[in-house]
Parts: sequence; structure tokens; C-alpha cells
Amino acid sequence: MRDGNIQIGVLGVGRIGKIHVENLANRIPGAAVAAVSDVLPDELAAINAKFDIPKAYSDYRQILELSDVDAVVICMPTNLHCEAIMAAAAAGKHIFCEKPVDLSIEKIARINAAVQECGIQLMVGFNRRFDPNFLKVHEMVNSGKVGTPHVLKITSRDPSPPPEDYIRASGGIFLDMTIHDFDMARYLMGSDVTEVYARANVLVDRVFEKVGDWDTAITTLAFQNGALGTIDNSRKAVYGYDQRVEVFGSEGMVAVKNNSPDNHVHLDRAGTHASLPLNFFMERYSESYLGEMKAFVNSIRENKPVPVNGNDGLMAVAIGLAAAKSAKENRPVKVSEIQ
Amino acid sequence: MRDGNIQIGVLGVGRIGKIHVENLANRIPGAAVAAVSDVLPDELAAINAKFDIPKAYSDYRQILELSDVDAVVICMPTNLHCEAIMAAAAAGKHIFCEKPVDLSIEKIARINAAVQECGIQLMVGFNRRFDPNFLKVHEMVNSGKVGTPHVLKITSRDPSPPPEDYIRASGGIFLDMTIHDFDMARYLMGSDVTEVYARANVLVDRVFEKVGDWDTAITTLAFQNGALGTIDNSRKAVYGYDQRVEVFGSEGMVAVKNNSPDNHVHLDRAGTHASLPLNFFMERYSESYLGEMKAFVNSIRENKPVPVNGNDGLMAVAIGLAAAKSAKENRPVKVSEIQ
Amino acid sequence: MRDGNIQIGVLGVGRIGKIHVENLANRIPGAAVAAVSDVLPDELAAINAKFDIPKAYSDYRQILELSDVDAVVICMPTNLHCEAIMAAAAAGKHIFCEKPVDLSIEKIARINAAVQECGIQLMVGFNRRFDPNFLKVHEMVNSGKVGTPHVLKITSRDPSPPPEDYIRASGGIFLDMTIHDFDMARYLMGSDVTEVYARANVLVDRVFEKVGDWDTAITTLAFQNGALGTIDNSRKAVYGYDQRVEVFGSEGMVAVKNNSPDNHVHLDRAGTHASLPLNFFMERYSESYLGEMKAFVNSIRENKPVPVNGNDGLMAVAIGLAAAKSAKENRPVKVSEIQ
Amino acid sequence: MRDGNIQIGVLGVGRIGKIHVENLANRIPGAAVAAVSDVLPDELAAINAKFDIPKAYSDYRQILELSDVDAVVICMPTNLHCEAIMAAAAAGKHIFCEKPVDLSIEKIARINAAVQECGIQLMVGFNRRFDPNFLKVHEMVNSGKVGTPHVLKITSRDPSPPPEDYIRASGGIFLDMTIHDFDMARYLMGSDVTEVYARANVLVDRVFEKVGDWDTAITTLAFQNGALGTIDNSRKAVYGYDQRVEVFGSEGMVAVKNNSPDNHVHLDRAGTHASLPLNFFMERYSESYLGEMKAFVNSIRENKPVPVNGNDGLMAVAIGLAAAKSAKENRPVKVSEIQ
Repeated sequence: MRDGNIQIGVLGVGRIGKIHVENLANRIPGAAVAAVSDVLPDELAAINAKFDIPKAYSDYRQILELSDVDAVVICMPTNLHCEAIMAAAAAGKHIFCEKPVDLSIEKIARINAAVQECGIQLMVGFNRRFDPNFLKVHEMVNSGKVGTPHVLKITSRDPSPPPEDYIRASGGIFLDMTIHDFDMARYLMGSDVTEVYARANVLVDRVFEKVGDWDTAITTLAFQNGALGTIDNSRKAVYGYDQRVEVFGSEGMVAVKNNSPDNHVHLDRAGTHASLPLNFFMERYSESYLGEMKAFVNSIRENKPVPVNGNDGLMAVAIGLAAAKSAKENRPVKVSEIQ
Repeated sequence: MRDGNIQIGVLGVGRIGKIHVENLANRIPGAAVAAVSDVLPDELAAINAKFDIPKAYSDYRQILELSDVDAVVICMPTNLHCEAIMAAAAAGKHIFCEKPVDLSIEKIARINAAVQECGIQLMVGFNRRFDPNFLKVHEMVNSGKVGTPHVLKITSRDPSPPPEDYIRASGGIFLDMTIHDFDMARYLMGSDVTEVYARANVLVDRVFEKVGDWDTAITTLAFQNGALGTIDNSRKAVYGYDQRVEVFGSEGMVAVKNNSPDNHVHLDRAGTHASLPLNFFMERYSESYLGEMKAFVNSIRENKPVPVNGNDGLMAVAIGLAAAKSAKENRPVKVSEIQ
Repeated sequence: MRDGNIQIGVLGVGRIGKIHVENLANRIPGAAVAAVSDVLPDELAAINAKFDIPKAYSDYRQILELSDVDAVVICMPTNLHCEAIMAAAAAGKHIFCEKPVDLSIEKIARINAAVQECGIQLMVGFNRRFDPNFLKVHEMVNSGKVGTPHVLKITSRDPSPPPEDYIRASGGIFLDMTIHDFDMARYLMGSDVTEVYARANVLVDRVFEKVGDWDTAITTLAFQNGALGTIDNSRKAVYGYDQRVEVFGSEGMVAVKNNSPDNHVHLDRAGTHASLPLNFFMERYSESYLGEMKAFVNSIRENKPVPVNGNDGLMAVAIGLAAAKSAKENRPVKVSEIQ
Repeated sequence: MRDGNIQIGVLGVGRIGKIHVENLANRIPGAAVAAVSDVLPDELAAINAKFDIPKAYSDYRQILELSDVDAVVICMPTNLHCEAIMAAAAAGKHIFCEKPVDLSIEKIARINAAVQECGIQLMVGFNRRFDPNFLKVHEMVNSGKVGTPHVLKITSRDPSPPPEDYIRASGGIFLDMTIHDFDMARYLMGSDVTEVYARANVLVDRVFEKVGDWDTAITTLAFQNGALGTIDNSRKAVYGYDQRVEVFGSEGMVAVKNNSPDNHVHLDRAGTHASLPLNFFMERYSESYLGEMKAFVNSIRENKPVPVNGNDGLMAVAIGLAAAKSAKENRPVKVSEIQ
């Protein structure tokens, strides 16, 4: 802390890292960006042109050596998460890490052990929990507005498939895309997922078949408390980013729909027309990126448990691996088979 | 035909039979109710008090003997369908039969053979196909407005569970309730269902457990054309009759929501409020009951194939049996295992 | 009454008369169409082909002579209303008369006096009061759901202008079109209109200018209870029949929007699309035509006051004349200037 | 300009001034806050605690003397606008001034003359033009999506009345509240208002009567191009900030509704429920405050005409004065009577 602000180092300032730097610099009271790192000099230069950040490094380890840095935000590629988290934990820095923590359950378990041992906090970047719409659903379910939850429905469709290189490294649809929905499922239902059945197909683009992945999937979830869930995913919704959830229970139902840039309605001879959903995840989830970072800063400042911890990071990956196994073997798979 | 009207006998004038009599008598040009039958004298008397029907019998076979009756509408209990259809077909009457045709695939196959042999038509009462909303979805999918269909979503929830006696005789949730959704799935996607995975639970009322049934279910469908579907059912939605479908495809999405008695919006200090969905299936589907009977009368008058035939009746039951087997054995079941 | 049914004569079986015959014949228990009249033989023939009506005349006076006719429904041209009502009242028949009762305040006053003297009831066909949406608004305002009403907003737009001949005989936009809204205003606000200011223009079609009429108008209403209202009218909404109301008060607001043939939503690359409002008044208001006739039959059967009486008919015309005067003289006009 | 940023002085850092400082400091590239002024030391201290602003003064004239200040943002009380604008113009500073510029037409005319003479630009803070919803309506009307505009409808209701002191100094409902709607009317219809008829009443709170003001009003607008408009205002909508517009034309209609904090829908036994509109103007219009300031900075940087100029400021006040006169004298008033 300096001037009453938590000092934060941002490790990796690509697309997501830039969002966090901007939010921390301009919109989150009580925090300051003390240092940034990136292996690409251009990214560092771009950040420095926009924000006046005291220190910039090509190697993130130099940030970990700064004694006045309280916490780090890790936005590097997934395959570097484990090493960076281990090093940051050893250096006594609190950690915010983008999802997924790792693609291996064993590694995440080791990370979680290290985090506990070092007495620091690890928060995982499941930003959607902080979207105003999903927050509202959570709040209403939690306060009993739907009674006992019986059924969860999530629709989660991307506007268009990522490039082939991204797909190859992504871990597959269940670990790259549905993982958000698995976390949302646990968050909204307040219960762990015990078994999944995933049915997947390649309907959008043959490239997914080529790399052994799918682009369309429906996943059934069985929750510990007896409730059931269904998630439908597609890599390509031509009309935009389709993100909806619904929780149905003994006393009612609550649902949220997509966000649009405006709420105009236009009627002409041809029909009634309105705007499409927002098309880009950084616009759609701009509020949730801000919200999660506020929550992290707040937890560290007030020494409270972070709202999305290492176990949440682990469970989402475990469910994702179970779903991938289910889709491959066409049978229901218990999450405990994975762990 | 007499006076240019098709002469129809209605076999069974309980709840559903009454709807058909009223529609045929008052709202469907080109048809007349020539005779009704029911084993309960009170039902017959009630019908005669409201409508001026030439003939009324306690035994439906007497209607089949009337030479000027062109067609019959069978609204008797499911366990009498087979016998009545066989007799009506033998008598050369066209047949409209309430769903399900029967709970046994073998019997339905025999019925279908007899119908063909007798050269009469059999239409099955999947009225929901004639609901203005679902018709619109079908028309839009059919005319390519969503491109190639990839994902079907159906939400189908009853306002409250039927009485225990009804449940015991119903054939279970998949043959009594989801059967409508299975037919809707085939209708909207224009493709047969090849495999199902159903996950079901008792969350609403222990009575379902007692009789070996479920009250909450999520069913995944695999279609012949590669598309996927998900259906979620509950026997009890406290807010009314929840009936929604959505078809997502390569070029877009079309969805319909519930019907309400009015479209008012009320804002006060406490929130924004609107009417609940219609609560009773006969109100919700009043238009579709009318529409299906118009379609039947029209097909017979113009000697065209009926829009929902015996094979549709058979397939819906086959999928229902596969779903029940899937839920019991917790594994995906091919529909071909049933047939 | 015969067979427990009120015997009704329908005077004039053109477009609206046919609706009433059909509703009375098929959908309203407790009433029967005993006789119809029309000066056009073709209209009579068309009715007889569809409904089995005991008696048909070219001269409506013959119906008034039938001793077993309890009530008449007058659907003849407006300029014949007065004479027919007077004759029917003298014959002791209860009367349902299409709106407007007449275009002259003096004549309506004489009619109302005659009706009272003869001890029969006169109901005026402001059918929109019986539309499920407007009924709901009325019920909510009445039960205090918006507190004390402060502001009324009505949008009322026709899909397309009527033919020139119709326009010439119509009495002008305020007596032909806005008259419905004036009645709705009094109905929803539960208070009389004391003063109006109408601003009108010809923006749709020059034919309105030619006949000294307008096609677009905004009318401000001052109610006796201090509340204010605004009505906007257009003779041509290319997207269909636009009929909305809103009541705003000290404790909230209630509004209803248009009716559409279905509630589908379609998303494609170009946008979000839905159905247009219903385009034809007989589709849009089919429920309200049924509802008003049920209410009339019910009032006569149970000897209760009709829900829309001669004074309602008079007030709507008085406000219409005040509005026309206001538009012509560009000044606020008190309704008392008219009476 | 310094470091490529326009240097801006903010004169008055009360509620609105703070918004502008925050937006300029954090969210608007190409601008920097060089100095702030306020007569209240506490306001200055509060601003300095949050933002690192080089200079702070109690007297705004000191800012006008700073040679490196390019532009000023005037957020002082309305009665100081004229003097400050005159001084800033004389000092060669571009000016952004909160609405209303002044309550006197003569003074605004003098201001506009001075601005022209000094060769600087004056932008008036009608922020609502920059709200994403209203921008969309403007864009659609402008691009011909509704054809020729015929009718404008604006609903503008505050969540609750301001304190009595504010009301007394406000200039009355038409100059304080409806003025926004008058500007919106000119903006959306692309035509000047030539005549108004305003009907107003005190229905919410007797305090308005005490000070010779009204709390509820309906205003009819006649536009130069023949179109008509209606605005309904209330000082108290218990359900929140109600801000809607609709433009109807020869080829269709476009409308926007209120903004809510989320889009959840909740159904329980009692009904269908959703969130209320946002309640506070700074939340409701946060995007428009940002947008107008971006537009101002952009216009100054690129030496283009500002999008809301002194004439816009003058016209809105002229219509407001005409409306107040109309309400007082209960007659339509030409805007030319005012100028």
C-alpha cells in the first residue's frame, strides 16, 4: 500500500490485461497499477502511452521482486499460469488469475495447496459472476425468490469461432467456452455438479473436427442437491453474443436475457425490429470485468476471502474435463471420475 | 356428407370431447356433429343441453354403424383407443384420435397397418402443432429463416401435478407430458430423433416416487440430421403453464414465449409487473384445438393426407419409451432400441 | 324469451352486423337471433347461408312488430340510427346501437329522453371497453393500482385511411375515429372531460383537406377531476393498427400495448424481428365485439343497467364536436360550449 | 494544448461539475483538467482528493487568466452563466455551459452575439442528445427509417420533486424540466417548433401552487414542417425516472423506453416482475454526460462546429417561455411571440 492504494502489478498486458490496467487506473478507488510486464515491447509501449505507470518490465519476475507490490493480476497465456502463480505465491503477493487457472486438475490442486501454504489469496477471473444481470439472478435465487431451485438453463453462444490456432490451444469447447457456464452453474445453484452428460457435434465449421473438438454442445448437469441443469453452446450465433440464464424452482422462476446497445423498437411495413445483442465479449462484459477487479481489490484491502477462489477454479475445470469425456464416450460421467 | 357438411361422430364427451363438439358445432364450417357417445349419461345430457345433436349413445359402436357418419373423433381413455380405432377403421370411418394413440409401440404399428389396409385416414391429436406461435416457428424454420437448424430448446412445464390416479395410469412423465414435446421436436426440426438421454428426478411431490415416476426432467435429443435438442419439464410451475420453444440455426434463431391473458405492464414503487402466463391448457391451447380440428375436417373434405398421421403418433411414443428407459438406466438410448 | 334465450333482431347485416350475428348465434349462451333485416338482398342471403335464422326482412320495421323479439341490435348507417332507435323504443325493444348514436347532440338527447320514457335500455357499441387489455387497465385504475390518476395517454392509429366516400360521410376524424378514444378516456379515468384542445393537420393524404377534414391530430383533454390527457391519432400507420393506452397516477402507471398474431422473436444478422400488430380492426377487436354483446345480453336477461348507456353515447359525441371546433378555431374549447 | 491534450478549466465543481471532471480526467482521451474553481472550499478539497488537478481557485476569473487553458466548462448556478460566458468569451476560451444558458431570451441573444464576435465556440449541455437510446432514434429518423415524421411523443417524468428552494429558483417546470424535452423535440424532428399549447396543473404537491408553478403538464407542439408533438411531464413518478420518446412517420415508427439496472424477469404466484427504471438522473444519463463532453472536446480539437450551439440554447428557452405563457393564459402561443 502507498497513498492508501493497493499496489498492483499486471502480468501480461494483451487484450484482457489492458482492460484490467484501465479499470485499475481510472475506475477503481483504492488501487494503483505499480508495474506492468509483457514479453512484447509493443504492448508495453502501448500501455505506457495511455497510462502513466511507474514501472514496466519484459520479465514478470521482476515485478514479483518489488517489495511495494501487494498483488498481481495474471493475464498471460494459460500454460504460464501455474509457474507464475507459484512464483507470486512464494513472493507473498495476492493473486488474481484469469480463467482457466490451468487445464490440469493436478496442477490446480498443487496451486491451491501452495496458495494456502503461503497465506496469500488467489482469485480466479470468472468475471461473469459480476455481470449486473447474473448478479441479480444470484441475489434472487439466494434470497429464496424462486424457492428451492429445480432446474437451471444456460444458453451461451459465441458470435463467431476463434482462429484455428486458438482452437488448437484452447483445451476444447468445454474447457474454453462452457467452463464459464460450469462456473455460473455452481454459482447460481449454490450446489456442486456431481455428474454430466454432454452431447456435442460439429455443425458450424469443419475445422473443429480437424482438431478433435466440437462447435455445438448440449450438456446436462446433475447437482448434488438433486437439481438438474442444461447448457446449450454454439461457437457461432450470427446475431451476436447470446448469453442467457434461467433458474426455475418450487416458488417461481427468474431469467435474464441478452444486453443490447440500445432498446429502440422500430416498426415499418416489414415488421417490428430491434437491435441485436452486443457482439463482442469485452463490450458485453465490460461491467463484469470492472466488478470482479473491484471485488478483488476490496477483498485484499479488507482482508476478506475473495469471492471466486482456487477451489472454484478447480471445480470448473473438473466439470469441463468430465463433459469432454462424456461427449467422447457418449455416457454420463461423474465429476468424481476426474478428480 | 349431408348439406355439404362432413358428418362426424364424437366418441367420448368428457373434457376434451366437449371442446371438439363445441368447435365442430360452432366454429368449423363444413362439418357437423351427427352423433355423440359416452358411457356416462350425465356427460351426454350436458352436451345435449348445449348443442342440438341428432343422436346420442352410451355405446360408441352404435355410431360406427351409422352409414351417414363420415368420420369419428376419439376422446375416450387411452386404453380404449386401439379397439375403437380398429372398429372405426373396419367401418370405413376416418379417424381423429387423441394422443397418445396407445402406450404400446406394437399396438400402434398394428393400428397403422389396419388404417392403411382400410383406406381411411388417421390423424393424431398433437394439437400444439396448430398453436399460432408454434405454427409461426415451424413456418420460419421451414422457410429457411434460421438457416440449417442446429439446436432446439423446449421448455414445457405444467402449472400443477395431476391427481395420483391420473399419474398412475398416465404411462409416466415421458409418455404423458414430454410426448407433446417429442412430437413438437420432430415437427419443428423436420428430422427424426435417433437417440435420447433423459435425466429425471422427483423434486415436486413424493407421490411421483411412490408410483415409480418423475416430476422433473431434462432430455437431450440427437436428431438424424446432426442437430441437438434439449427439453426441460416440470410438473409444477407455480406461475402458470410454461410453454416455450426456440430453434437456433446457422443463420439465426426464432423463439416463442408464453401466452398471457393481456399484455398490461404495471409499474409501482415495488417494481414492474405484468400478467402471468395462462394457467390452464384449455385456455392456452384453445386456438390449437380449433386449428387441428379444422385441419382434420379440411383433409377429409379435400381428400388430402392429414397433417399428423399414425407414424407421427408412433414416433412420439417410441421416443417417450426411449426416454423413460434412459432415465431409468442413466444412459443414452437409441430410439431404434425401442422399435 | 323462448327456450330460455333472449330473442334478438339484428337490423343491418353488413360488416359489423355479421359479427354480431355470428357471436349471438354461436358464442353467446342465453341469446338467439330471431330475425335479421337488410335493404340488400345479397347480405340477407349470405347470412342465411351461414346461419339458420328464422326470419329475414328487407325492412327493419317488420322486426319491430314481432312480439317475441326482446331486443334489437342496430348496425345500419349512422344517419338511420335516430329513426330506428325511436321506433324500437316505441315498440318496447331493448336496443344495442353501434357508435356513434348520431352526429347531433340534440338528436341524441331526444333519443335518451325517449329511451327513458319507454322504459327500455339503450347500450352504445363502444366495443373497445370490452377488449381484454383495456378491461385490465380499467380494473387496475379502478382498484387503485395507480393511485389517483394524473395523466392519460392514448395512441390510436388506423392502418390506412378509409375510402373518400366514407370520409365525407364520417363526420370527420374526431367523430369517426377519436370518438372511440374519447369514450375510452372517460371510461378509464372515471371522470368527465371538461375541455379539449385539438391540433390537427393533413399529413397523410390530401383527400382529407379536400373534404375539410384532417388525418393527423393531437388532442389535449382536461378532466373534471384535474387530470390531463393526450390522444394522438393518425389515419395511416403503415405497420398496422396501433392501439395503446397508459394511465399514470400518484402511485404508479399501467399501460397496454398492441396485439400481434403471435409472439415470435427472430434474430438474424440484420437484427431482432417480431410480428407487426394486427392490421384489421375486426381481428384486433374480435374479443371486444364478443364481450360487449355478452354484456348486453346479460344486462337484459338480468334486468341490470347496461355498461355503456345513452349518456356515454352523448358525451363522446359532445367531446368530438368540441375537438373539431377546437381544431378549426385553434383554441381550447369547453365541452359545455357544445351541449 | 499540452502533451496533445486540450486544457480545460471546470468552473463550479458541485454535482454536475464533478461528473465532468471525472469524465475529463479518466474517460476522455485528448483532454486534461488544468484547473477547477468553486466558491466552496470543501468542494475544491473533495475534487483534489480524488483527482490530481494542477490548479484550484475560489474565483473562476483566475482560470480565465491562465493562458494555457483552451476551454472552460461552466457548471455554476444559472444566474451566473451570462457573466461567466461573457468573460470566458472575452478571454478567448471555448465554452461548454450547462443548460439553461439563461432564463432570459435577451441575455442569451447577447451571449450568442458575443460568442460569434470573439470567434470562440459555445456548446450547451443538453446531454440527453448523447444518450445511446436517443442517439439511435435520431439516427433512424435522420436516415429515413420512419419516412416523413408526423408525430413526436415524449414522456418525461422525474422520480420526485426537487426541494422548495430549488423550485423557486428553477424558472418553473417548462424552463427547468420540459426544456430538455423541447430541445429533444427539435433535435429528433429536425424542425423548429412554431407554436405550443401547454396545459398544466398541480396534482403532486401543493408547494408548486404556492410558488406559482405546476407539477404536471401536457404540451402540444406544432413544428414548422407541419408535424405535431405531445410531451407529458410529471414531477413525481414513484417508479423511477421515466424517459421515453417515440417518432411516428409516413413509413413507420421508432420508440425507446426506459433504462433499467438489469433485465431480469421474475415469475412467481403473484405475477411477472421486473426491475424498475433507473431512479436517478446521473445514473440514467451517465453515458450521455460522457458523450456530450467527448463531443465538445472533439469539436474543439478538430475545429468543427459544436453539435449543440447557442441557438439551440436560445430556442429551447424560447419554447419554454411560450409554454409557460400558454399554460398561464390557456391559449396556444406562437414561439415568435417570445422572441
